[in-house]
Amino acid sequence: MAKELKDLTSREENYSQWYNDLVMKAGLAENSAVRGCMVIKPYGYAIWEKMQRALDDMFKATGHVNAYFPLFIPKSFLSREADHVEGFAKECAVVTHYRLKNNPDGEGVVVDPEAKLEEELIVRPTSETIIWNTYKNWIQSYRDLPLLINQWANVVRWEMRTRLFLRTAEFLWQEGHTAHETKEEAIEEAEKMIHVYADFAEKWMGVPVIMGVKSANERFAGAVETYSIEALMQDGKALQSGTSHFLGQNFAKAFDVQFAGRDGKLDYVWATSWGVSTRLMGALIMAHSDNNGLVLPPRLAPIQVVMIPVYKGENELKAVVAEMEKVAASLRAQGVSVKIDDRDNVRSGFKFAEYELKGVPVRIVMGPRDLANGTVEMMRRDTLTKETVPAEGLDKLIMATLDNIQQDIFDRALKFRDSMITKADTWDEFVKILDEKGGFVLAHWDGTTETEVAIKDATKATIRCIPFDTPEEEGTDIFSGKPPTQVATMGTPK
Amino acid sequence: MAKELKDLTSREENYSQWYNDLVMKAGLAENSAVRGCMVIKPYGYAIWEKMQRALDDMFKATGHVNAYFPLFIPKSFLSREADHVEGFAKECAVVTHYRLKNNPDGEGVVVDPEAKLEEELIVRPTSETIIWNTYKNWIQSYRDLPLLINQWANVVRWEMRTRLFLRTAEFLWQEGHTAHETKEEAIEEAEKMIHVYADFAEKWMGVPVIMGVKSANERFAGAVETYSIEALMQDGKALQSGTSHFLGQNFAKAFDVQFAGRDGKLDYVWATSWGVSTRLMGALIMAHSDNNGLVLPPRLAPIQVVMIPVYKGENELKAVVAEMEKVAASLRAQGVSVKIDDRDNVRSGFKFAEYELKGVPVRIVMGPRDLANGTVEMMRRDTLTKETVPAEGLDKLIMATLDNIQQDIFDRALKFRDSMITKADTWDEFVKILDEKGGFVLAHWDGTTETEVAIKDATKATIRCIPFDTPEEEGTDIFSGKPPTQVATMGTPK
Repeated sequence: MAKELKDLTSREENYSQWYNDLVMKAGLAENSAVRGCMVIKPYGYAIWEKMQRALDDMFKATGHVNAYFPLFIPKSFLSREADHVEGFAKECAVVTHYRLKNNPDGEGVVVDPEAKLEEELIVRPTSETIIWNTYKNWIQSYRDLPLLINQWANVVRWEMRTRLFLRTAEFLWQEGHTAHETKEEAIEEAEKMIHVYADFAEKWMGVPVIMGVKSANERFAGAVETYSIEALMQDGKALQSGTSHFLGQNFAKAFDVQFAGRDGKLDYVWATSWGVSTRLMGALIMAHSDNNGLVLPPRLAPIQVVMIPVYKGENELKAVVAEMEKVAASLRAQGVSVKIDDRDNVRSGFKFAEYELKGVPVRIVMGPRDLANGTVEMMRRDTLTKETVPAEGLDKLIMATLDNIQQDIFDRALKFRDSMITKADTWDEFVKILDEKGGFVLAHWDGTTETEVAIKDATKATIRCIPFDTPEEEGTDIFSGKPPTQVATMGTPK
Repeated sequence: MAKELKDLTSREENYSQWYNDLVMKAGLAENSAVRGCMVIKPYGYAIWEKMQRALDDMFKATGHVNAYFPLFIPKSFLSREADHVEGFAKECAVVTHYRLKNNPDGEGVVVDPEAKLEEELIVRPTSETIIWNTYKNWIQSYRDLPLLINQWANVVRWEMRTRLFLRTAEFLWQEGHTAHETKEEAIEEAEKMIHVYADFAEKWMGVPVIMGVKSANERFAGAVETYSIEALMQDGKALQSGTSHFLGQNFAKAFDVQFAGRDGKLDYVWATSWGVSTRLMGALIMAHSDNNGLVLPPRLAPIQVVMIPVYKGENELKAVVAEMEKVAASLRAQGVSVKIDDRDNVRSGFKFAEYELKGVPVRIVMGPRDLANGTVEMMRRDTLTKETVPAEGLDKLIMATLDNIQQDIFDRALKFRDSMITKADTWDEFVKILDEKGGFVLAHWDGTTETEVAIKDATKATIRCIPFDTPEEEGTDIFSGKPPTQVATMGTPK
């Protein structure tokens, strides 16, 4: 491991390669034999499980329940909503047959041509269509509303250029699908959920995000309005990390979902959908980690504290581990996950490198001299600072240190992010900032797709969002020179 | 709801119809627009979530970790293990294309013939092949073993005759896939996991099970030995509820997974796999429920206690609900899920029927007279018995009652199951028991597939398993008359 660790490309040398190396070497994920599909390895999945648990608790606390809808969507369903099919048709995995048979001409099996489906099935790229077809039977009256339902599932979008976690053909996600009596209530729900995502990103992942409205061009296929949270990676690139959509009555109309209102009149149901995916793993990794490996916020770390004994001979090992067990027991009782690594066939240096690579927030090292002195060595992974601290009251110190690390990781990311938000008043400034500094650029935009596309073609930068808290300000578009404008947050996407 | 409840077919009239009615009316699941695929509704999914949590904790307590492998399996992988492909080829959903395009001849979209995959992908019916192809890269030496990995996932087997939860084209499950250094260790693992399943079935679901070895004919495709847990439904039919497989070196050989042993020599890795699925939902429903609806064991009930106020006017309602809130707070602090149903637009009788249908274990009814007397009415769903009990110490009484219900549900199911195990010494006896009584029949079997198939053709009964604790006993086969034999547990499958 110590040797392998040296093979980690540095961030400065090649940020993309550093990311790939880190995902592989820290045991988070790898590419599979199936093009574009990843294997999420146990250590990576353990982080995802922690994310799921925290998000699921937040969804339930805001009144949502989970359910499960089919993996397959009849092809004809996709066509019902015009924008939706336009957005997803080009990346659909299509099931056409339901049986294999022995190859009559040789070895192996072939698709049985007699087992052709009458209508092809699409592996869900997202579930609005199958869910709204189901909701049709669940909703008759305003009394059946709201429906506040979430699903944890896998989805497939046939991407041509894939990257582990960030863009894969199959990914894991949750998708909320809610149904409402009024437009106002649906908008409120869509806004509430983007706030839930922002809370999760900041309080659990330690990743500060900008919340705002997407431009028409970047809107979800079938939505009236899309809200997003936008995070900034260490290389100055932007990563869309979660979206929430106000769908208006588009899907209700496509699937004829009407309800009898309080006035007895029929009206179409108002809808939202919202989702975050394993892409969050990419955001987490890229926001904090360094050339020694992962840096994980304590709240999402599968192992929060690792204890490594330094010793000669079995007696010393036993004495040290006995002392560690006491502290570990107290920490575990408080819900902290602790690992005591007493492997005897591995050098301490190897262990140090391994847990640095894996991003364990707190490392405790203890030897016979510490036992005699009543001390231990404590290291913080985020700062790599070591300290000799009293063994007495160690559990309390560790608890406080975990809290501090969680906060400091966020504060550092926030400071960096804020230092990377730059205002551009002219086109030249805009191009220069993108070239030399990167990050988020605030600039006046005339609100047209035409200008947005032209800017993207010229610079690769896109409008990340119009932040909710953008102050009104008069100006002219940096590209077209036209008024009136709004101030958009732009940036180069990962 | 009270009206709808009356529409629940009785168990005596038509057991299958009763089951279907119950699954639909209690809001557990329904058929979807996609043939053979179900929608798991929020109340059903909440039970499944409790099952998942309990099982996941048990897997982790026995040293397993979770991971995630691709949904798709390259067609050629399936053919690598001869028995495996033979077992699954006839029920595979096959992805052949990765893009749709606008229909040139009319409306909607069609499959783009130019987007044909070079090699078709199978939607996983089970993941041995893709996982062992991955393990090849993870295992070089005995130091890399054991691998103890579980996956929570959806799988697809194209079933022609489907039934909600019991047999669906898509279902949710977990699949453990472990890799070991020795044959003995792999067998120990496979046996350990069938014991974990039995523990879960009995202690959480309240369903007694028989553990044993499957006959060669009923073995998992690719396994050397399959162990199963077999439960008995109220109609005397048997339901296989979980399986664990000792796979020998079959998949290691198929995917060339070798490791350097302690002696430095290369050998193929030993394997197990094991799984339970949403079929457990069917077992749970059919094992305990009655003509009034679901009967849920408290440990898996999404709502464990419901409190229903009886009142006239708002003041009475407020006073009663205030009292209920106190008890609820104490129960919630002890981890009990409590619902206070203070809806004012629904009659109490409607509420009573609804929670009976949904199987809420304990119902508390309180009115102004109870307030004056310091009493409440408590009903147990499993026995439908009502009792007036003191309000003082109600939380403790409810906690004890929940424990009692959990135990009593199991005891009743066990008593019934044991009463339905019958020994048959002759063929005539065997046929008569199956015709008149059903249940499990213990009978001598000569161990051949020929006899097994003949018995099935004649009676529909199959060998459920050879129980682990079957005493050795000399005899002759009830059908073929041949010695030597083993005593098999037979029964008619659901």
